[in-house]
Amino acid sequence: MRVWEIQNKQGLEALTLTERQEPQPALGQVLLRMRAASLNYRDLLTVKGAYNSKQRLPLIPLSDGVGEVVAVGEGVTRVKIGDRVAGIFMQTWLDGEFSAEKPKSALGGAIDGILAEYVTLHEDGVVHVPEHLSDEEAASLPCAAVTAWQALITQGNLNAGDTILVQGTGGVSLFAVQFAKLVGARAIAISSSDEKLERVLQLGASNGINYKTTPNWDEQVWKLTNEVGVDHVVEVGGAGTLNKSLRAVRFGGTVSLIGVLTGLTGDISTGSILHKGIRVQGIYVGSRAMFEAMNRAIALHQLRPVVDSVFPFTDVREALAYMESGKHFGKIVIRF
Amino acid sequence: MRVWEIQNKQGLEALTLTERQEPQPALGQVLLRMRAASLNYRDLLTVKGAYNSKQRLPLIPLSDGVGEVVAVGEGVTRVKIGDRVAGIFMQTWLDGEFSAEKPKSALGGAIDGILAEYVTLHEDGVVHVPEHLSDEEAASLPCAAVTAWQALITQGNLNAGDTILVQGTGGVSLFAVQFAKLVGARAIAISSSDEKLERVLQLGASNGINYKTTPNWDEQVWKLTNEVGVDHVVEVGGAGTLNKSLRAVRFGGTVSLIGVLTGLTGDISTGSILHKGIRVQGIYVGSRAMFEAMNRAIALHQLRPVVDSVFPFTDVREALAYMESGKHFGKIVIRF
Amino acid sequence: MRVWEIQNKQGLEALTLTERQEPQPALGQVLLRMRAASLNYRDLLTVKGAYNSKQRLPLIPLSDGVGEVVAVGEGVTRVKIGDRVAGIFMQTWLDGEFSAEKPKSALGGAIDGILAEYVTLHEDGVVHVPEHLSDEEAASLPCAAVTAWQALITQGNLNAGDTILVQGTGGVSLFAVQFAKLVGARAIAISSSDEKLERVLQLGASNGINYKTTPNWDEQVWKLTNEVGVDHVVEVGGAGTLNKSLRAVRFGGTVSLIGVLTGLTGDISTGSILHKGIRVQGIYVGSRAMFEAMNRAIALHQLRPVVDSVFPFTDVREALAYMESGKHFGKIVIRF
Amino acid sequence: MRVWEIQNKQGLEALTLTERQEPQPALGQVLLRMRAASLNYRDLLTVKGAYNSKQRLPLIPLSDGVGEVVAVGEGVTRVKIGDRVAGIFMQTWLDGEFSAEKPKSALGGAIDGILAEYVTLHEDGVVHVPEHLSDEEAASLPCAAVTAWQALITQGNLNAGDTILVQGTGGVSLFAVQFAKLVGARAIAISSSDEKLERVLQLGASNGINYKTTPNWDEQVWKLTNEVGVDHVVEVGGAGTLNKSLRAVRFGGTVSLIGVLTGLTGDISTGSILHKGIRVQGIYVGSRAMFEAMNRAIALHQLRPVVDSVFPFTDVREALAYMESGKHFGKIVIRF
Repeated sequence: MRVWEIQNKQGLEALTLTERQEPQPALGQVLLRMRAASLNYRDLLTVKGAYNSKQRLPLIPLSDGVGEVVAVGEGVTRVKIGDRVAGIFMQTWLDGEFSAEKPKSALGGAIDGILAEYVTLHEDGVVHVPEHLSDEEAASLPCAAVTAWQALITQGNLNAGDTILVQGTGGVSLFAVQFAKLVGARAIAISSSDEKLERVLQLGASNGINYKTTPNWDEQVWKLTNEVGVDHVVEVGGAGTLNKSLRAVRFGGTVSLIGVLTGLTGDISTGSILHKGIRVQGIYVGSRAMFEAMNRAIALHQLRPVVDSVFPFTDVREALAYMESGKHFGKIVIRF
Repeated sequence: MRVWEIQNKQGLEALTLTERQEPQPALGQVLLRMRAASLNYRDLLTVKGAYNSKQRLPLIPLSDGVGEVVAVGEGVTRVKIGDRVAGIFMQTWLDGEFSAEKPKSALGGAIDGILAEYVTLHEDGVVHVPEHLSDEEAASLPCAAVTAWQALITQGNLNAGDTILVQGTGGVSLFAVQFAKLVGARAIAISSSDEKLERVLQLGASNGINYKTTPNWDEQVWKLTNEVGVDHVVEVGGAGTLNKSLRAVRFGGTVSLIGVLTGLTGDISTGSILHKGIRVQGIYVGSRAMFEAMNRAIALHQLRPVVDSVFPFTDVREALAYMESGKHFGKIVIRF
Repeated sequence: MRVWEIQNKQGLEALTLTERQEPQPALGQVLLRMRAASLNYRDLLTVKGAYNSKQRLPLIPLSDGVGEVVAVGEGVTRVKIGDRVAGIFMQTWLDGEFSAEKPKSALGGAIDGILAEYVTLHEDGVVHVPEHLSDEEAASLPCAAVTAWQALITQGNLNAGDTILVQGTGGVSLFAVQFAKLVGARAIAISSSDEKLERVLQLGASNGINYKTTPNWDEQVWKLTNEVGVDHVVEVGGAGTLNKSLRAVRFGGTVSLIGVLTGLTGDISTGSILHKGIRVQGIYVGSRAMFEAMNRAIALHQLRPVVDSVFPFTDVREALAYMESGKHFGKIVIRF
Repeated sequence: MRVWEIQNKQGLEALTLTERQEPQPALGQVLLRMRAASLNYRDLLTVKGAYNSKQRLPLIPLSDGVGEVVAVGEGVTRVKIGDRVAGIFMQTWLDGEFSAEKPKSALGGAIDGILAEYVTLHEDGVVHVPEHLSDEEAASLPCAAVTAWQALITQGNLNAGDTILVQGTGGVSLFAVQFAKLVGARAIAISSSDEKLERVLQLGASNGINYKTTPNWDEQVWKLTNEVGVDHVVEVGGAGTLNKSLRAVRFGGTVSLIGVLTGLTGDISTGSILHKGIRVQGIYVGSRAMFEAMNRAIALHQLRPVVDSVFPFTDVREALAYMESGKHFGKIVIRF
């Protein structure tokens, strides 16, 4: 079968399409014929060698994909041949709280990912995806959507009438807007593009702020919330934007720390966290139970992920380069 | 009556003992004859002009004190003449969640504090203190003890079997050790003094680390917890120690951000917060309901705050200078 | 001013329209000129003497009403003349948890209610109502809507994708349907009338079951939820319907015990509660903080309470008789 | 190997000691040589045919036991040969919330239990037990201790200063007293025996009430709590005692419904649940994650379960008869 590998070098050009033997499902495992995969910013960093300095190689990249069960190992009961499933981001985080063991089973990082024509996973490590979704849409869920769900719903306990702030128009931010709308909350979005802001308003955000033309967007957020601040910030920028987020959030509010687009470390106003009684919550994707609860909501409301573009399996490098350009709005998908 | 004031200058020497007219309780208010007060690091910063650059002056400093009700205004029902009560840190945070309004009623900061022979407070802004405590002990509770209670119990939901880390041997840290012990948790303490570590072990901590002789105390904490990390860090250092705390805490653990001894801002590893799924929770004292729940536990267990030393009312400057020296272990108290 | 009183006799006929002197606001109080009031089943029971065997008399009945502030006592800061506000059900439950003290301040029960042309309340005991609501709609909120909000949102933490069950088409049940829809949950309703079921479907419920033609409605609910059961039952029937609710709810689900239409006591399957790990949560209206959070959501979504009918102030007896008939769908309102 | 079976008849006498072939661990399974088992009231009901009218037979009874791993199947990583482990009550409830699937894996009920010389379990279905415990003590934990832990800690969030009420001196009640003490709460116990009350006081309860000589024990509890009521009742009686528990608990308090000693159904005051805002929480043992959190606390505090008596493997009928007599104080254990 064909498979993409990060081999001994890193960088987009070094990503290699090669052959491996088709795997067979061991006891408890399922064999998936992959249909679609989606990119996350983590995948771009991983391919470029910027995600984890101790990354073991070679590695099959990508965590997010949907496939059809074409064979099952002995003892499998949760799924059957013909089912359409997605792998969960951390194969061993089924339920309950996060722990140090869970990331050791992260697809496309700690272990091989799903950018291969056939993939074997333990039956515990897959979930059925909502029927109304196309393969491309379903492939968008495992990382970005579950991250937004954990941040806002599981940890954030977002309520009707609350206001959230999202940054940019990547996968997590757009899912956050959609989930906020689903539960009766209001979303304010910031972006560098008026055109993208227009689209995020169409998706359900109540207000958009162009952070290029309004660099002090935190002040604008303050005004939009009657000088109270937002209840919840979905922070994807990381160290470079966190201080503005700490100013934009209300006393007693929450900042979900989800992304590190602007850096892994930076000068942070710890005094603000203290005096405003803010909760800064690190969010690293989520559990299978969260994925399933989210799927239930997505199915009930026939919610559709925003797919920006679809690249063929042979064009993964082009897809990653496109992500790097920052021109996308929503998820970038690979079609097998 | 005699009263200490921060007048138009700041600094320990400029703190002035002066006279004001004895106040009378208005409708709903109580008049307290103060018996004892206790110092918090915030008071030292306030007197030195380093706490709030927009501090209004003149100001009666100090938030923490216990007094006897000697008169009550019309309509008062919660207390009666002769009762011994303490003022709550934020006079309007009675119950429920924190909000921007609450700090506007902080004693000894936003409004006048209690370093006066007579003080009037609204009846809603006082609590009865446990009977078994001396005045000096009772005066130790409003800020430091409530802060530790909110961090570990109300927000932290500390469980039997958990492990916490405390830094230094100031008021909050010692209350944290006592409360951890009360609920069946284990406490590891760090300090610059072996002698103080000895005393904190006697108070109930399970382990002590001298951070002068063991600068990489986070690694030592890691070993003491079987390479799991602690469940909860009571962070009083702030920006300068937070990165070590982020290394010392377990995946999915909590850092209560309580103090800013080492600075209000600093280079913070936001990547660690994300990847370890850490919750950094700003804690700013707490509500009357938390104070009362804490008092119930303190009374049941006849727990006694650690009073380091008692200064007469005339020696407030000396008391603050002693706090600045960092030689104390527990609370520094003023006796009226 | 004119005022309705339950005097020394009970029963609808004995309810008396009489005169009292117009009250004046004391310190901290506001004087309201009442504009509209709404009926709850509790009011009917109170007038008939069936709510509280130790009810003190005479009593001005009714808890729910909206009025205009026409005068304020000394020290009032939360509201100003001209504001439109509603009284909160328990005048002293402002925030935080329920306690034995709170019901001692319940309007129209423990203390006089609002069925008078002028009413004085403490400023802490009122809330501003959403501007887009008519007086009649706003008068519908204090008891029924806050009860539904506490049950589903504050206590129930209802999530998008969850399913609830409501019984009948009284005020609490219809608000529950509206709030469920607001947060992305699904609602199943039971009623004795196909016509009412039609209307509750229009309001946003997903399914209706006529419990007259389908006495084993719990089995029907089971089928409608793929034999999982609902996540949350808003139980207004009480002892007579609770066992069916315990069958209709999922393992680990919640039954909010809100009403006692079918009795205060009855044969209950405690074994089911245990084996299914069910939470049966008594709900008695809610706090001012819940009311305000709810208002924020109602305002954001321009949600409109269902007003069945409006009676003039002189026709309170007729309004109560109409409620007793059970023909209403939504709230019965009194216009001053 | 020798094994006890409930065969085609029920009742203590029909319980049969017989032979089965020694099992071998399949993939993912472990083989345990059992060392000790403990009895729960559920086991007595099961043997008598009174627990589940649809009980499949034959059945190996008992859920609680500790054994040594003597062989492991392919792929086992959580335990190794020589480890001492206990089976978890529901083999598939590892973490997260309760659901309908979980009880289908309950040992000694839905599936065969552990009253056999050798037992195979999936590696996910066992936990290591604290080292300081004897086999007999460790065998006491899986059902009774985890039940008390879930009730008070996981669900009940018991705090220092709270007061609980326990009924009788069976396993759950004694663990509840011990856990309450561990977290700084106070425990009031009721029993029919002054001698047993004396012993429960020695174990750490603060007060004992003889419910034979004080039939209105709920009034006594009310007095002992300054007419506030207890925060939490661990209800093991069920329908027959619940109304008194509802009177003994405070407004806003919790009743954990754990046992059904006095019946599966009864006349319950639903009105009290509503008006006092009580939470009645069904508790059915707990998850592996709860078991492990509990073990961590037990190990830290070297807490020791109360073992009443130890019977040899051949005397299971006598042990059950002794349980039926109600003379025990703590756990009844079988030694293999």
